[in-house]
Amino acid sequence: PRVTAFSKQLEKFHVIIDSELAVKMLRDAPSPGKNWSAFLKVDCGNNRAGVWWKDEAGVDLAVLLQNSPNIDFAGVYVHCGNSYHTSSSEEVIQVLDDTIERLMTFVNHVRQRGVTCSTVGIGSTPTCRKPTDRMKSLTELHPGNYAFLDVQQWSLGSCTEEDIACCVATRVIGHYPRRNQMLIDCGFTGLTKQGYGEMASGYGVIRGHPNLKLCKMTQEIGFVESLEGKLDYSLFPVNSLLYILPWHSCATAAMHSVYYVVEGDTVVEEWRPTRGW
Amino acid sequence: PRVTAFSKQLEKFHVIIDSELAVKMLRDAPSPGKNWSAFLKVDCGNNRAGVWWKDEAGVDLAVLLQNSPNIDFAGVYVHCGNSYHTSSSEEVIQVLDDTIERLMTFVNHVRQRGVTCSTVGIGSTPTCRKPTDRMKSLTELHPGNYAFLDVQQWSLGSCTEEDIACCVATRVIGHYPRRNQMLIDCGFTGLTKQGYGEMASGYGVIRGHPNLKLCKMTQEIGFVESLEGKLDYSLFPVNSLLYILPWHSCATAAMHSVYYVVEGDTVVEEWRPTRGW
Repeated sequence: PRVTAFSKQLEKFHVIIDSELAVKMLRDAPSPGKNWSAFLKVDCGNNRAGVWWKDEAGVDLAVLLQNSPNIDFAGVYVHCGNSYHTSSSEEVIQVLDDTIERLMTFVNHVRQRGVTCSTVGIGSTPTCRKPTDRMKSLTELHPGNYAFLDVQQWSLGSCTEEDIACCVATRVIGHYPRRNQMLIDCGFTGLTKQGYGEMASGYGVIRGHPNLKLCKMTQEIGFVESLEGKLDYSLFPVNSLLYILPWHSCATAAMHSVYYVVEGDTVVEEWRPTRGW
Repeated sequence: PRVTAFSKQLEKFHVIIDSELAVKMLRDAPSPGKNWSAFLKVDCGNNRAGVWWKDEAGVDLAVLLQNSPNIDFAGVYVHCGNSYHTSSSEEVIQVLDDTIERLMTFVNHVRQRGVTCSTVGIGSTPTCRKPTDRMKSLTELHPGNYAFLDVQQWSLGSCTEEDIACCVATRVIGHYPRRNQMLIDCGFTGLTKQGYGEMASGYGVIRGHPNLKLCKMTQEIGFVESLEGKLDYSLFPVNSLLYILPWHSCATAAMHSVYYVVEGDTVVEEWRPTRGW
């Protein structure tokens, strides 16, 4: 009912489904004054959500969607997150091409059953950073991480360090020479613990300081050490700022209620993300 | 200046410091109309923030605080988070007693220098769940996790499963018999990834279902498998609810903007935590 109420305010309300139960619920939902715009999620090897591309049951579901009252069948979508488990650009491109080939096989089956499938979309930032000719079969791209990028994308070869648009500003709050450490006011509530073990520099990359390692974090505190030699505290006075590039910007961005858009050293805009997943 | 403005609205504004620089900044801060209430943080073996309990520099800092304009020296505080790195209740009690002994050594030095040290406080939930006679020397306890408890505390012997007051309600959103999995609408933005590898059941404990394992999470999606045998999907219809007990309730609670207080099956209150660390 909350979604129905919300959908009345919008021109179109898109939902992504992958089960007969969901089709039935949409079909029988109190009419929102307009049809639901329904996408069918397809799984082409990523093994998250979606009907398995080879299964006839998925094609049947598309037919059911096309023929259901209250529903406009909008098309198909596949997330190829398996591109993250690759170790070279060639493998990313292989995932992309395999995904599109599988998806188009599915879409052709659907079309052969007389169903109009206008939108054909894929996601995953690594694949969208390595476009190939086969992408011409698609009508939409949904690469969520593309907006910010991060150290993970950098390590996958999807971008350079300079392309990373998401970083967490943090302040040096204490010097502890007894244990060759300094503390910063960024813990896991500011960064998340994702990516530990993936970078020599610990939980993130401290921009411009390749010899620093964010080796530990508690809730609001981070522990910074030097990778080699002793920390030169004169470079990092208490109260000075450091900037951390996160391993996974989606996770880090989700920890903050405001994003500061900067040009050089100037904040030119403040973005407040919509919540409520 | 923001803190100064805020402090005007309050009877007392407590700050915890552990460096001479911080004392100077407080001393020279625009007068907030009342004195800052300053605690000195002491490190008794946890190696996070705080003056090292054995160092004379810490005692000097207490004297400086006592003699500084704009500042009321309120007392000392130590967080004994090293209690988390124990493997038995006996070890927890050892950490507690060692911490108190070291802290009281420090406090006695401070008092011998003519400084009034009225508050003597410690933190850490595992130690506060195993009180000993030595606690009589203390005037305050600050166990943050105590309010909710969690699977980590349960594993440390600080509580039972029934004592855990923080859980995340999640919905079954898909059955995937092809890979003996089901999906739930709780990913790392609802739970955090903390604790993986610590529990046979994966990223959390699914209450009442010891045979379920939350084996993987993406941003808003969790993957649930059976630890033994095949999943019995009839027990977990799509749209039914499951309840996840988190490894670290502090981290999980930080992901949510509203907490539902329940009695039985009824929501009796909604709490909205204050943000702005």
